[in-house]
Amino acid sequence: MSPKPSSSGISRRALLSALAMLPALSGALPPVSASAQTATSGGLPSWNEGTAKQAIIDFVRATTDKASPSYVSPEERIAVFDQDGTLWVEHPMYTQVVYCLERVPAVVAKQPELKNVEPFKTVLSGSREAMAKLTMSDLEKILAATLTGMTVEEFNADVKKWLATARHPRWNRPYTELVYQPMLEVMRHLRDNGYKTYFVTGGGQDFVRVYAEQVYGIPPTQVVGSMGGTKLGYDKDGKPFLTKEPKLLLNDDHAGKVEGIHLMIGRRPYAAFGNSVGDREMLEWTGAGAGARLEMLVLHDDAAREYAYGPAQGLPDSKLGTFTQALFDEAKKNGWTVISMKDDWKRIFAFD
Amino acid sequence: MSPKPSSSGISRRALLSALAMLPALSGALPPVSASAQTATSGGLPSWNEGTAKQAIIDFVRATTDKASPSYVSPEERIAVFDQDGTLWVEHPMYTQVVYCLERVPAVVAKQPELKNVEPFKTVLSGSREAMAKLTMSDLEKILAATLTGMTVEEFNADVKKWLATARHPRWNRPYTELVYQPMLEVMRHLRDNGYKTYFVTGGGQDFVRVYAEQVYGIPPTQVVGSMGGTKLGYDKDGKPFLTKEPKLLLNDDHAGKVEGIHLMIGRRPYAAFGNSVGDREMLEWTGAGAGARLEMLVLHDDAAREYAYGPAQGLPDSKLGTFTQALFDEAKKNGWTVISMKDDWKRIFAFD
Repeated sequence: MSPKPSSSGISRRALLSALAMLPALSGALPPVSASAQTATSGGLPSWNEGTAKQAIIDFVRATTDKASPSYVSPEERIAVFDQDGTLWVEHPMYTQVVYCLERVPAVVAKQPELKNVEPFKTVLSGSREAMAKLTMSDLEKILAATLTGMTVEEFNADVKKWLATARHPRWNRPYTELVYQPMLEVMRHLRDNGYKTYFVTGGGQDFVRVYAEQVYGIPPTQVVGSMGGTKLGYDKDGKPFLTKEPKLLLNDDHAGKVEGIHLMIGRRPYAAFGNSVGDREMLEWTGAGAGARLEMLVLHDDAAREYAYGPAQGLPDSKLGTFTQALFDEAKKNGWTVISMKDDWKRIFAFD
Repeated sequence: MSPKPSSSGISRRALLSALAMLPALSGALPPVSASAQTATSGGLPSWNEGTAKQAIIDFVRATTDKASPSYVSPEERIAVFDQDGTLWVEHPMYTQVVYCLERVPAVVAKQPELKNVEPFKTVLSGSREAMAKLTMSDLEKILAATLTGMTVEEFNADVKKWLATARHPRWNRPYTELVYQPMLEVMRHLRDNGYKTYFVTGGGQDFVRVYAEQVYGIPPTQVVGSMGGTKLGYDKDGKPFLTKEPKLLLNDDHAGKVEGIHLMIGRRPYAAFGNSVGDREMLEWTGAGAGARLEMLVLHDDAAREYAYGPAQGLPDSKLGTFTQALFDEAKKNGWTVISMKDDWKRIFAFD
């Protein structure tokens, strides 16, 4: 997900470049009007014919046909998906970071002593210029203050409430609608063929779990994310409660994704989908297993319908975001399939 | 599982009392001869009629009958099981501790400099009297040396190999046969009714995963245990591998079991089974949810067929092991069901 992960799995570079983009985007682009959501009748209807679509179909057939030399028994069928930029929009800012920044006023309301303390003061000022100067340590303080200190139920309720009203600045739609329809079809196609689909995301595990089942059909048990500690306490009636603690158990990014897969799944995946250097190790780990494996990277090359920030866009490396030229070269070398959003996807969103 | 957990979830008290018991047991009791394993045809055939059996049947009916006010949707049906003493024999010593102690010679063979270093020297001496004097810190060194430093595949292969030949001193059978047949029937009954069954054990997650699927029908993804860190590396050909690190991420015992449930499952269980003070918080957490819940504790009160080390055995508290009088009292107060091995189980093992 990010080249230099912080303790929350969110890189400062990604955040700051996102902050810089925000005003331009929300000003320049009018919201897209809603269109009826089209039902899909199995298969991969939102995919154009091509090597990417064919790679998915061939892999599923090879691993589920009992006559195939690459047959995989149902209990071994594991597919893992990065989230930000692979399953939904990650620009101009990771959704979870937007949540944290927008939660600062509520945190300060409860702890007024933070009002004049940095970095909260800067966030409260609303000045994006000032926010762009926040340090890594500042960002960690914001994440710790906004993601911990409440019970897990309180956190779930707050995220749910926020998701119901928050809107993406470009499309003026809930973040949970900015999910790539072709990827939902891949997940469904895999599940229809006995695969268990897992998130393996740098995002916070508890955050993603709030909407994963409803939006992606992925139950909480199949969400692997950056993991924070919790602490058991008892209220005055002796009823136990769990509080979210500012303690990072696992940063589920880069090598942490492989460690997270081992910890939470305990089996090597047969298919892995990502879009950034943070997913490199997960794809390598998947590919190092025997038999047929599927490794795919989503390339953001569609500025008109979404964004373009991958290699081969004529952009200098400093503007490539997290899909670097080196990752592109490794994909070619290892036989990973690069999905071109522009060429491989008939539509991007369900509302397109 | 244990009143004073070490970093590996294994208490010194339990280990030392176990070491003290070993010679007497292996000398005094002849191995039981094998008898044919009887197939079970659904239901709970190894259970005597009584409140414990009825509590299981009533709970399953109440939570799976759509007409019931306590109906639970299939995706919410989660049942959690402690392992040692709840699903298989934990006396005279936790199986994993036996594994660690028996692995010391192999570790020393690879690192001869440890031969004259404590605590390895003492373990190599074979003197149980000397071993009984090992400190908590000694035990942690043994566990760290025997459970880490190898790849996850090497560890799995070694545990598998050990399990194939190791024998319990009392029954002279593989540890994986010393599983309580009535509990296997409960797990099957729950699964037949749409429940997902999970381990929530103080034992090492990687250790339990090696045999969980074959012995209990529980896949690796549903094993919640004490969790160690891993580290990604690459061999000379660029192939990635994961090494087990001496870093404890979560001690899955006492409050850690609730934290482990949140981390790995993300849903509150509807049923929880344990046998010791280490399971108390897990049962409390389960019981604090709304609707029908089932909390059960296995009481070891059958010295003839297994062991007797629970309360109400006429034993002083110091001899009660990990099912203390206080836990017994809490069970009564909270309406938890205590399973008497002596009275509730027709047979203990499949080979009985």
